[in-house]
Amino acid sequence: MSRSPQVAVVVIGAEVLSGKVRDENGPFLIDSLRARGATLVELRLIDDDTDTIAETVRTLAARFDYVITTGGIGPTHDDLTVAGIARAFEVAVVRDSGLVEDLRGYYQAGLTDQHLRLADVPEGSKLHRDPRGVPVLQMRNVFVLPGIPALARRCFEQVADVFQGEAVITRVLFLNAAETDIAEPLNVITESHPEVRSGSYPRTDDARARGKVTSVCTVRALVARAVDALRERLPEGMIVGEEEEDRL
Amino acid sequence: MSRSPQVAVVVIGAEVLSGKVRDENGPFLIDSLRARGATLVELRLIDDDTDTIAETVRTLAARFDYVITTGGIGPTHDDLTVAGIARAFEVAVVRDSGLVEDLRGYYQAGLTDQHLRLADVPEGSKLHRDPRGVPVLQMRNVFVLPGIPALARRCFEQVADVFQGEAVITRVLFLNAAETDIAEPLNVITESHPEVRSGSYPRTDDARARGKVTSVCTVRALVARAVDALRERLPEGMIVGEEEEDRL
Repeated sequence: MSRSPQVAVVVIGAEVLSGKVRDENGPFLIDSLRARGATLVELRLIDDDTDTIAETVRTLAARFDYVITTGGIGPTHDDLTVAGIARAFEVAVVRDSGLVEDLRGYYQAGLTDQHLRLADVPEGSKLHRDPRGVPVLQMRNVFVLPGIPALARRCFEQVADVFQGEAVITRVLFLNAAETDIAEPLNVITESHPEVRSGSYPRTDDARARGKVTSVCTVRALVARAVDALRERLPEGMIVGEEEEDRL
Repeated sequence: MSRSPQVAVVVIGAEVLSGKVRDENGPFLIDSLRARGATLVELRLIDDDTDTIAETVRTLAARFDYVITTGGIGPTHDDLTVAGIARAFEVAVVRDSGLVEDLRGYYQAGLTDQHLRLADVPEGSKLHRDPRGVPVLQMRNVFVLPGIPALARRCFEQVADVFQGEAVITRVLFLNAAETDIAEPLNVITESHPEVRSGSYPRTDDARARGKVTSVCTVRALVARAVDALRERLPEGMIVGEEEEDRL
């Protein structure tokens, strides 16, 4: 299998869980990580509660290469991401003097104590500064994005290079068969070609091709070998289409 | 706060994390739980791996009233939800004789060993049977839905009564102010009215109402009291709109 970065995404916000706002950052990050060849291993939508954030970030940061959080950044009582991440790593929340200067420049005489909360960061974190946008906070292997979708996108682009993986090759077989008909050959192929990830999906939008099988690996020859082995085990005429897709 | 059922949702499937398929079941369940007054406390998208499913279900089932899973149900090697849930509760996977009869009636002479995998369930689970649809599996406080969206919807409707909560009243104030301007009064209200859940959200789609504050509780009088207290603390003219919403 590919050595692509293993990434977990945490979408923070009661408004998303309650259905008041439809999350756009999860789908955006799914597509962006896929486009870069990173592996999204888990995505969680959680409440904006300091302990929940802390436990979630602690667990995922220990288990995977990177964590990306979105939401819960701001000046109000329900903006608890910074506090949660600090608690996850058992460090203090400190005021960053560079961010204080930024805020002073932006708000001038209108600067309030509430604005200054935006300069609070977990101790030991670093800021990715970019002339195109706002600074992006990184604490150890955790990247902190805002919740507003347009801002989250811009911030992600600033740090996107971190998530670059190897190119991945996907071969798709379209079949005029139900999942149950191919389960046995597919199980055999999965066991005999463990370096290739194979999956089987029913389809309802095409009466001719009711099922599809995908085989994924970073090495083209290994994908081809697994697909050929599967082809040999399927009855004549069951494969009604084929596709190959490369992507970074 | 309301005593509404606390529910976690687990969407199982590598195809969703990799971006090959956009998850529709999460958004459907967010809206359906909201419509019934249940509280969605967490939603996870996870890989179809037995240990991951087992650990996720074990954790969430112990912490919350109910867990709903979608996906990973079927006859192929990547359909591991039943095995994962059995491992979560440390029980065996057993073949359900009622389901075997169903499958025999449906497939007749074409019944294969692979079809029969669809009759495997965690030991001790029960089936919700309904003339309108397929049986829905329940293991302790975990409800198991299929991954295909149309089927998942039908199965959810069969067991939806379980998730009925109390009616919830939401009051929304629209403000011509940024989040930072109202952070301090909102913090005060949150502390003095702990029974009401207040949240503050920036808006980018309306230049006149740049922010909104929501206050949520099952008791109308408590919501009204919190909103009145907030109103008194906001400058004249800052509130530019108001809405109230009741829902089951």
